[in-house]
Amino acid sequence: MFTYLRAILIIYSSFLYLVDANSQNINDLLLSDNYEFIDLSHPFDGNTIYWPNKQSFVYSKKVIKEMDDGTTYAENEFATSEHGGTHLDAPYHFNEKGERVGLISLEKLIVPLIIADVSSQVNDDPNFVLYKHHLDHMINDNFGKPCVIVFKFGWSKFIHNRQQYLGLGANNTLNFPGVSAEVMEWITSSYKNIVGVGVDVSSVDPGSSTSFSAHKIGAAAGLYNIENVNLNRPVPEYGCTAIVMPMKLTEGTGAPARFVALCPKKKQSS
Amino acid sequence: MFTYLRAILIIYSSFLYLVDANSQNINDLLLSDNYEFIDLSHPFDGNTIYWPNKQSFVYSKKVIKEMDDGTTYAENEFATSEHGGTHLDAPYHFNEKGERVGLISLEKLIVPLIIADVSSQVNDDPNFVLYKHHLDHMINDNFGKPCVIVFKFGWSKFIHNRQQYLGLGANNTLNFPGVSAEVMEWITSSYKNIVGVGVDVSSVDPGSSTSFSAHKIGAAAGLYNIENVNLNRPVPEYGCTAIVMPMKLTEGTGAPARFVALCPKKKQSS
Repeated sequence: MFTYLRAILIIYSSFLYLVDANSQNINDLLLSDNYEFIDLSHPFDGNTIYWPNKQSFVYSKKVIKEMDDGTTYAENEFATSEHGGTHLDAPYHFNEKGERVGLISLEKLIVPLIIADVSSQVNDDPNFVLYKHHLDHMINDNFGKPCVIVFKFGWSKFIHNRQQYLGLGANNTLNFPGVSAEVMEWITSSYKNIVGVGVDVSSVDPGSSTSFSAHKIGAAAGLYNIENVNLNRPVPEYGCTAIVMPMKLTEGTGAPARFVALCPKKKQSS
Repeated sequence: MFTYLRAILIIYSSFLYLVDANSQNINDLLLSDNYEFIDLSHPFDGNTIYWPNKQSFVYSKKVIKEMDDGTTYAENEFATSEHGGTHLDAPYHFNEKGERVGLISLEKLIVPLIIADVSSQVNDDPNFVLYKHHLDHMINDNFGKPCVIVFKFGWSKFIHNRQQYLGLGANNTLNFPGVSAEVMEWITSSYKNIVGVGVDVSSVDPGSSTSFSAHKIGAAAGLYNIENVNLNRPVPEYGCTAIVMPMKLTEGTGAPARFVALCPKKKQSS
């Protein structure tokens, strides 16, 4: 009889939990202590890294004035290339039939985030090119849902040193790690549902590339890229959500983007 | 005995559910059929609405070229004011001690969203000013958590007619609905935890304002604004999450913003 009552009690409390779980508001969950937001965007200012000969971020006009009541009023105007700092490449960047930024659906911009950390294999070598064999640990993963994969080369730590970050050489040659055509083909042909590819360097292709194969293969398949992702803070390899928010440029071949990871917090070991 | 077995079965299935609910990934929830994303941003292009005498959105350079292998490559550069189209006003816009865009924490940018639909009271009157008595239905609500409130004046439908949207008159006078000082004081002094105020017009202050009281009161209290919110699609008044993603301008007095609502889908009545 005691066991029976106990069973009833457990059923009842489970029922309460069920009701709660079903009616749980997304806000309660997102804003609980179980999740945190991690900003994967570098800021835009005079130090933002752009490729040589591109329009860097610049304030073309700054207004600051005191109003009659003593309030200080400030507003600015700026100019920038679409492809500098943390930004999105639309498929149209390398595919005239591909989508421009304004048409990319939100269902491709808020998706599960996978971080493929290959930084220990890169080991700060600017000549590193990512091949499939570097990804043996995930080569057979089935990511299941539309997702974004970000390759962590370990390059964000150089963000305050443009020369090193870009591997700038004579005649503005560039040299930094990147993704091989082989890997981009694996991504686009293996039904992994990857809708976007991110890197913590200035291009998905290696800095020394002149063929831009990774760009072309991705764009042909309708994928977008996110370049100059800020990975200076640790991000879990699985379990986060990517919130990729490019400025909504109707005709954009690319756009400055805010990129945020929504991640389950690591539990404190008790 | 039968009842007892049945109880055990229910416990067991409840237990399975519990395990599932506890381990449920945020991605599974976000990407389930129970939620949808609604874009509250107008796009940026040559038709984007800016105030008179401000730098409108313009492509300062467009490159499109055919590469050796026949691929079409495209990239652009653009110029814009910080305060046009769907954009965020940082507190610094009207408060020299306030935060600039780059410093606004993500905990203030991803928060519950409240839509206060006053469009039937506005009734397309460009002289409408929002006072507390218009908000009687929510005046005693306790919003509980940090949140964004967006006032729907019903103005987004005029977005393709700049003259009407801004209420442009002689000498570039403006005339469109806005928020009174009274309402902004209510927002900042009633412990409602509102961190940002949105409007579906070009300014939180009425178009005819020259004192910019709503801006000043909000900025003094550390609130940001989102202006030119796109409310052409219906959005539930409660229950959605605001994802406010301004371009991360370190010194920004404001910034072009992508603004998305994450909303529980309306259940189909069966």
